[in-house]
Amino acid sequence: MTTMSDTAVETTDDTESRIDVAGLQEHLLGRWADLRREARATAGKSAFHKIEGLSKEDHRERVLDQCRQLAAIGQVHLGFPERLGGGNDPGGNLAGFEELVAADPSLQIKAGVQWGLFASAVLHLGDEAQQDRYLPDAMDLTVPGAFAMTEIGHGSDVASIATTATYDPETEEFEIHTPFRAAWKEYLGNAGLHATAATVFAQLVTRGVNHGVHCFYVPIRETRPDGSAGDFLPGVGGEDDGLKGGLNGIDNGRLHFTHVRIPRTDLLARYGQVAPDGTYTSPIESPGRRFFTMLGSLVQGRVSLDGAASNASKLGLQIAVTYGNQRRQFTGASPIDEVTIMNYGTHRRRLIPAIAETYATHFAHDRLLDLFHSVFSGEEDTPETREDLETTAAALKATSTRFALDTLQEAREACGGAGFIAENRLTSLRADMDVYATFEGDNTVLLQLVGKRLLGDYAKELKGITPGGMARFVVERAADAAYHRTGLRRAVQNITDQGSARRAAGHLREEETQRALLTDRVDAMVEAVAMALRPAQKASPEKAAAIFDAHQYELVEAAKAHADLLRWEAFTQALSTIEDEGTRAVLTRVRDLFGLTLVERNLAWYLIEGRISAQRARTVTSYIERLLTRLRPHAQDLVDGWGFGQEHLRAPIASGIEAERQDEARAYFRALRASGDAPVSEKSLRGRDGKGKPKGAPATDSSAARDGSTPNPS
Amino acid sequence: MTTMSDTAVETTDDTESRIDVAGLQEHLLGRWADLRREARATAGKSAFHKIEGLSKEDHRERVLDQCRQLAAIGQVHLGFPERLGGGNDPGGNLAGFEELVAADPSLQIKAGVQWGLFASAVLHLGDEAQQDRYLPDAMDLTVPGAFAMTEIGHGSDVASIATTATYDPETEEFEIHTPFRAAWKEYLGNAGLHATAATVFAQLVTRGVNHGVHCFYVPIRETRPDGSAGDFLPGVGGEDDGLKGGLNGIDNGRLHFTHVRIPRTDLLARYGQVAPDGTYTSPIESPGRRFFTMLGSLVQGRVSLDGAASNASKLGLQIAVTYGNQRRQFTGASPIDEVTIMNYGTHRRRLIPAIAETYATHFAHDRLLDLFHSVFSGEEDTPETREDLETTAAALKATSTRFALDTLQEAREACGGAGFIAENRLTSLRADMDVYATFEGDNTVLLQLVGKRLLGDYAKELKGITPGGMARFVVERAADAAYHRTGLRRAVQNITDQGSARRAAGHLREEETQRALLTDRVDAMVEAVAMALRPAQKASPEKAAAIFDAHQYELVEAAKAHADLLRWEAFTQALSTIEDEGTRAVLTRVRDLFGLTLVERNLAWYLIEGRISAQRARTVTSYIERLLTRLRPHAQDLVDGWGFGQEHLRAPIASGIEAERQDEARAYFRALRASGDAPVSEKSLRGRDGKGKPKGAPATDSSAARDGSTPNPS
Repeated sequence: MTTMSDTAVETTDDTESRIDVAGLQEHLLGRWADLRREARATAGKSAFHKIEGLSKEDHRERVLDQCRQLAAIGQVHLGFPERLGGGNDPGGNLAGFEELVAADPSLQIKAGVQWGLFASAVLHLGDEAQQDRYLPDAMDLTVPGAFAMTEIGHGSDVASIATTATYDPETEEFEIHTPFRAAWKEYLGNAGLHATAATVFAQLVTRGVNHGVHCFYVPIRETRPDGSAGDFLPGVGGEDDGLKGGLNGIDNGRLHFTHVRIPRTDLLARYGQVAPDGTYTSPIESPGRRFFTMLGSLVQGRVSLDGAASNASKLGLQIAVTYGNQRRQFTGASPIDEVTIMNYGTHRRRLIPAIAETYATHFAHDRLLDLFHSVFSGEEDTPETREDLETTAAALKATSTRFALDTLQEAREACGGAGFIAENRLTSLRADMDVYATFEGDNTVLLQLVGKRLLGDYAKELKGITPGGMARFVVERAADAAYHRTGLRRAVQNITDQGSARRAAGHLREEETQRALLTDRVDAMVEAVAMALRPAQKASPEKAAAIFDAHQYELVEAAKAHADLLRWEAFTQALSTIEDEGTRAVLTRVRDLFGLTLVERNLAWYLIEGRISAQRARTVTSYIERLLTRLRPHAQDLVDGWGFGQEHLRAPIASGIEAERQDEARAYFRALRASGDAPVSEKSLRGRDGKGKPKGAPATDSSAARDGSTPNPS
Repeated sequence: MTTMSDTAVETTDDTESRIDVAGLQEHLLGRWADLRREARATAGKSAFHKIEGLSKEDHRERVLDQCRQLAAIGQVHLGFPERLGGGNDPGGNLAGFEELVAADPSLQIKAGVQWGLFASAVLHLGDEAQQDRYLPDAMDLTVPGAFAMTEIGHGSDVASIATTATYDPETEEFEIHTPFRAAWKEYLGNAGLHATAATVFAQLVTRGVNHGVHCFYVPIRETRPDGSAGDFLPGVGGEDDGLKGGLNGIDNGRLHFTHVRIPRTDLLARYGQVAPDGTYTSPIESPGRRFFTMLGSLVQGRVSLDGAASNASKLGLQIAVTYGNQRRQFTGASPIDEVTIMNYGTHRRRLIPAIAETYATHFAHDRLLDLFHSVFSGEEDTPETREDLETTAAALKATSTRFALDTLQEAREACGGAGFIAENRLTSLRADMDVYATFEGDNTVLLQLVGKRLLGDYAKELKGITPGGMARFVVERAADAAYHRTGLRRAVQNITDQGSARRAAGHLREEETQRALLTDRVDAMVEAVAMALRPAQKASPEKAAAIFDAHQYELVEAAKAHADLLRWEAFTQALSTIEDEGTRAVLTRVRDLFGLTLVERNLAWYLIEGRISAQRARTVTSYIERLLTRLRPHAQDLVDGWGFGQEHLRAPIASGIEAERQDEARAYFRALRASGDAPVSEKSLRGRDGKGKPKGAPATDSSAARDGSTPNPS
């Protein structure tokens, strides 16, 4: 309603711009293009596709068999050492791995359990002898394995797990034991049926001292002559988790251990060893740092979920936009042609900002994958890059998995009843993606972790705080926090101009304005939380905990703002790498849409904090509406740019049948009108014979009647 | 961070208040308490419960059999005429019906298809002879039926359906015909397998004139000797919709007709008759009004979905809050006890505002049900009340179904991995509720309908507008729009004080302040859209359509604001009916939370429009945080107040086993500490022997370690 004061948008000439779709597809394949192409070809094969409606028993067997095929191809071995037949290419491994989600998310996650968790625990936590001993069978799936970390009683709180591994110097064995029901290992993929071994996390106790959580290699089931898993071994027990809200191709289950003995040498020994006499040694003196280092080596799960969530969003949007460009509903200005639903303002609003955010998610993931590769290939493996990687992975995983769920739901609703039919895949994908929000680290807990890292910058001011769980964290972080701030920023390799952060918002379309608004928000929110936490310094532990708790919500909001900035910076950086002018021009508008959507989402904050005037704030929404109108002609190109084919979409509504049906209907009416046999409508008759419409009656024209949307049958 | 300027909240004394849970349960059963109790008893019986993981084939047979049992009980006949064995109690019928969602949403919807759509079409659109002829078999399920309205090509646009019913005076028959693929009837419950008849909506053509959409009774399948459905009758064809994203206990399917002939007397004749010679007559002269009247008689579907969605939200929240009150995770101030997760700020934020909104949804539904009953019982059946009912049903259905999906997802995530296990029901309920957002009227289309009704008040100003689909609607609405505004308000029987609407916001806790803020927003938004549409008056049809399209999003936002106000008013009105002081005091805070949450959600609007100062706006969030802290002790009572028992929840995590597991674990550690055999932690040793922690190492205390949330296995 308000006239745009930011008239710059009017004068640009990119309305003529066109996306070079083939070029964009190639560009988006990114650094590991060949591996992605290969993985997409695999994911496009029917042998790897999810069959909707399979019983969980059949689905589990199918996915196990698919994993065997993957093992045979060897694509999943890229991340393992070359001496064992791997490719020593951690980034390329994940790039290929996350494409599997297009075939069946259960396959992606089952493969992730086997190679990304179980075998990776041996790889990252074991010594070379242990790798040589256990990895070959894990890699070729001779030994399907479970990753037995989580316990019923301690989901995200791994440090508190209660399973014990007590060393017995007499026999030179560890005794793995589950002391109570809440210490059962829970939700473990492969544990329900297929695993014959597990990497079990337990409190290592030797000589009366608990050295904290370590990982142990524990056989759990017999292997039958045909290679399949048989009964539990003595002392091992468990249950099948049964049906889940999705991912039913995976046999999740529970495990417990009753005085199960394993050899001393099956403590995975990279970060902690026990000598025959029970003496504990570790290359990392601090138990806390040791714990973080061990768990940090398993960050690749979060990295790959970020990529998989990005792909799931793409699939959902490509299905919904393709359908929305063919589907017609209700007449508009034309009395004959119905309106293509992508042309409705509400439809643009629900889908095009999601396209923009998906691009941001994509580019941010590319940067995360670079960082992951540089650390895990050893190219740049420092404590600093490791911490950056962990924080960035936490921020992006929490953001992209939440976004995928929202996007798939929006896509499903945008397709109406057709979106609810399983064959159109949207509900199935969403159900499978649901648990991505809480596994590999609960999203809320991850965002708190990110928030606490951000607080590090301000921690010096908090020095001297009295003890108390979360309070103490901040203080102790302060010692080596100096590099966090820039470190986190460097994760997207773009140092922002701090100087410009607080100047009044200029033209919203300008990159620097968007950057200033987004950067300023992170800085100010972190500072505000840090200030609010100051009274905790002089408070009792209880009071300090209460103060931290009272600001948890704001801390999480600050972490989200940080993730938004990371994504925006990654998108912006990516623009400079696009050579085709038309593509770059359109994607620059897409980036603007993403940036402005972030500002609109948090508009109240900008207003309250005086960063944007009410006058300027009004223009945010109208600018967004304008961008949506301008980007609408590019919507199909934008989703096609992601490069998924029909073999990945596999949704009948995105196959072109909707256009065929619409064309057939319009041809029918055209022929009927031409034939002269078309019945006359009572309404037009009333118009013609001069009766008019009865006084006081509601609208009688067809478009008004159509506005009376009506009960759809169930 | 900002000190509350609204200090009134400090001085109230309701912190001592307690909810009388039993009294609240009784109160919330409402007007049809006995019928609800009876229906809940039915829903609590295992014979009616959803069995997770059943094949769709078995699930469909189970639900059909459950429907037969319901027919035998007779509870589902309450809405039918007494002369046919019904209860002539439309409100009571829906009250009972919507409780079935606790047993299995598929049962609720399958019953809804049979009695609420198929049989109701005969009841509301047929004459007495047709009711006598067809209702008994429909009521006792001798004839399972489909409600064949929606077509593949026209989801929410019923006026444009393409199936024809052409009258042939020679044989005195109608010929039902499907001209092309897009005109197949689609997503019809019962059509996949069980229906032997259908109420088919088609364009009635006689003597060369199309009189618009009418409903016909059409047998579609043979009835086998055992009473089950056999093959399609000649000329009828169809397909099974197969697996869906949920509600797989219902056999949705497609139907098409190839020159199928039915007797003249099977046109359901209440609103339109064709004489033997082909002469068409109707008691409603205007075709538009006739169409709306016919469809309006089927509004009960939307009313009941509103109630069912409310119940689903309650079930989800009761499960999540019960679990959240037992589950402990991470240590806080205490070095020994872990924190109950309901005590986390983030957990309060995700669940308690949802409890408040569920109460608002509940009370608004009560008012809607009153309105429905007064219209359909004939107590107050006027065009005015019918229009109020339709608009209110559209507003509330669109709001509560969306809310239920968000709430069930939040509840599922709040329960972590346990929330994803099917036996805990959250994912199952959510999957079943998914389609509630788009069936019985797509939520976006419904909100547009509401928005257009709101625009009626301003329509006079738009008079003289040039033609064009949506533009014309507004103008023609204007003629009889004078009562809409008050009419809609009267739907919640609470005329607001318009005079106070624009005064500066006073104390946020004051009812009048909340009312003024919420009312003002609706008025101002509608006015703004109306003003923005004015240029459409002088525009070409294409340009006018473009102008309307450009403001669709704002129109939908205005409709949402209206629904928010309806819910807040209903909540506020309900407070005065609660006699127990403690209960009323707590629920008043819950209402405040709901009101302030609405303000917070739209805070940018209030700031931009100058309704709230930046200073005041800061207090909104801090006031909400304070309310959350104060309401937290009442969370369990609030969800228990809804009165669902374990037979309705049926979620192991809400059964008390979590508390048992936690108690067992704590007892174990207590005993271990007492025994003196507990291993010493390496960390504490390092403290004791003076080594301290290595310089530059990260935090080493256990709480810090716990903050490093870690990969959960998949």
